[in-house]
Amino acid sequence: MITVDLGNRIRELRQQIGLSQEKFALKIGMDRTYFASVEAGKRNISIINIKKIADGLDVSLGVLFSDL
Amino acid sequence: MITVDLGNRIRELRQQIGLSQEKFALKIGMDRTYFASVEAGKRNISIINIKKIADGLDVSLGVLFSDL
Repeated sequence: MITVDLGNRIRELRQQIGLSQEKFALKIGMDRTYFASVEAGKRNISIINIKKIADGLDVSLGVLFSDL
Repeated sequence: MITVDLGNRIRELRQQIGLSQEKFALKIGMDRTYFASVEAGKRNISIINIKKIADGLDVSLGVLFSDL
């Protein structure tokens, strides 16, 4: 399921930069509960929010999706 | 704007496989009008629909987003 794969990839990259879900969500101005559900693969997230997360992770969309 | 960049990229790849908007939308089971608005960058498309389009174009998400 693509939502699960994307959520796992986002979690992996977030952990690489050493931020908690809460701190990362705060950094990008996203609701913490919503962000947690994205990482859990429970949201059919839109491209604008995907881009916001990629920017917060400081990776391109190409890198975010590189193995998906 | 990411929706515009993504729409342009989808159009480019669709044209490479030589299908009209109508034929491509029919192929992937997506409403033709909705698909046209995605290519025009007017939709905040979700990951499930992006994946459906990538599959129809026979590219990975990494390739779809490679230059975005």
